[in-house]
Amino acid sequence: MHSSLNTAPDVLISEVGPRDGLQSVKATMPTADKKRWISALHEAGLREIEVASFVPAKLLPQMADADDIVAHALTLPGLTVMALVPNLRGAEAALAAGVHKMTIPVSASEAHSLANVRKTREQMIGTVREIVALRDRVAPTVKIEAGISTAFGCTIQGLVAEDDVIRMAAQCAAAGVDDCGLSDTTGYANPAQVRRLFRRLRAEIGARAGAAHMHNTRGLGLANCLAAYDEGVRVFDASQGGLGGCPYAPGASGNVVTEDLVFMFEAMGVSTGIDIDRLVAAREALKAGLPGEPLYGMTPEAGLPKGFQQGVPHGS
Amino acid sequence: MHSSLNTAPDVLISEVGPRDGLQSVKATMPTADKKRWISALHEAGLREIEVASFVPAKLLPQMADADDIVAHALTLPGLTVMALVPNLRGAEAALAAGVHKMTIPVSASEAHSLANVRKTREQMIGTVREIVALRDRVAPTVKIEAGISTAFGCTIQGLVAEDDVIRMAAQCAAAGVDDCGLSDTTGYANPAQVRRLFRRLRAEIGARAGAAHMHNTRGLGLANCLAAYDEGVRVFDASQGGLGGCPYAPGASGNVVTEDLVFMFEAMGVSTGIDIDRLVAAREALKAGLPGEPLYGMTPEAGLPKGFQQGVPHGS
Repeated sequence: MHSSLNTAPDVLISEVGPRDGLQSVKATMPTADKKRWISALHEAGLREIEVASFVPAKLLPQMADADDIVAHALTLPGLTVMALVPNLRGAEAALAAGVHKMTIPVSASEAHSLANVRKTREQMIGTVREIVALRDRVAPTVKIEAGISTAFGCTIQGLVAEDDVIRMAAQCAAAGVDDCGLSDTTGYANPAQVRRLFRRLRAEIGARAGAAHMHNTRGLGLANCLAAYDEGVRVFDASQGGLGGCPYAPGASGNVVTEDLVFMFEAMGVSTGIDIDRLVAAREALKAGLPGEPLYGMTPEAGLPKGFQQGVPHGS
Repeated sequence: MHSSLNTAPDVLISEVGPRDGLQSVKATMPTADKKRWISALHEAGLREIEVASFVPAKLLPQMADADDIVAHALTLPGLTVMALVPNLRGAEAALAAGVHKMTIPVSASEAHSLANVRKTREQMIGTVREIVALRDRVAPTVKIEAGISTAFGCTIQGLVAEDDVIRMAAQCAAAGVDDCGLSDTTGYANPAQVRRLFRRLRAEIGARAGAAHMHNTRGLGLANCLAAYDEGVRVFDASQGGLGGCPYAPGASGNVVTEDLVFMFEAMGVSTGIDIDRLVAAREALKAGLPGEPLYGMTPEAGLPKGFQQGVPHGS
């Protein structure tokens, strides 16, 4: 194991595959396979994993085993166990299961908010307040993140005003969330926009400015992560194998591919705490649980560059 | 046609598909199809196209029609017609054909130089000098570019010292080339390395610092182009459909995909002079000439974002 794994990493890669990825595919991964995959990701060095979504099982049968999955994830040392909660009932269930962190999706687009959670944006801020109050009452050490979805554009309404994005983030921060990230739900973002919005986000809510959740729909996922990094973002959502909806082929994927993102940062000399070889090995656990599902990621296919040593900035 | 097409673009996208792409695939595109494809690319707004390689036909039968292709490209108004020349004989043939610009591949890796052109790096600098002298004598208005290949690493020798890259570039500049770019022949580059090397290149040879030629082998192609842009690079090589060797699937491609690169820049408000819709339409000409060949590019598959207007920075 290389030396940089022994010190605090420069960036936190938050793996969302077991939630964002698995809820986007048709098949349901068996519970035992999910556990093996999450363990393999943890073994590779991932220290924050979004393991489940607390939503009604009839809506998302892929997430019906959320309690069981959280219980398993809680056995993994040093892991921040995270779950998505769209509403108060979900938060109650997540807290009862014992998660360390909850993420709430809050749309910047009114049209998307109505379609996704059947609430106006204003109503959704009310939900955030309720969840924060619940957390403060029953589990004050649990962290809450708001993810501002459609922050870079919306497939329903098209453009989303940057003022709307920043206002929603400010309202989430005022409602008491610990951090607030920006999500390119639709794969519309470009690097200039990413820089502008994260700069405004930091100016507005300071240290509560949170993760960059980028998609790779138009191939710009890593460029957008680089742009966010340049603006000081240090937490990045990503999904192993780009799992999370691949409506377009070839090469299109939903979420940014964890493997390629980790390779980019490590090659730059930005430590992630993740062992690339073990991360690539974790794909086998994913494949075993979802046979036949297309996986993306170029680094796993191409291999590491000749002479590449993790922990040593490449090319210097 | 949108307004930004009427003013000087901010960046020059140099299309290398008809050379770098076509010489990397097994099939040989019929001459008439090549002409239609090059015309379609020109119609989309591309103003520099590497149309051929002047090498012995027995080595690269795909390039046997170089004279004919150059003659066709010369009929397209405003187009800089470019060809690769690996040696003096190739330069003689290219100048006889009437090209506007020649590009010479010069390896930073000794091992790659010996494998690729069967010359040491020092011998290759001698070749550059001979080609410059020929140009000065018979066609002084023709431009010469050196592309420093394996500038970011080599599949044979592994790491390539940055001092070697910069020394080769300085020697090319001293030999009289008009500009000197850096090529990630092997898809090893990362954004930090790209920034360092282009910064050093500019410090060393000033305005003769040339194009970024990036590959997408590990998915970092666009991120590397963004990094180069941040360092002041304004000329980018790219290949329609990512043509140019796709040794790894799915999603891996050789050259950066022109369509995705143009989308990234245009979305950022960086004008390319290229009409995205017409560029995507030009894929049909490529497909017609190379039936069955896999094409890459996510923007063509995903389509443009809802509400996207070329010439208007997205999201602002």
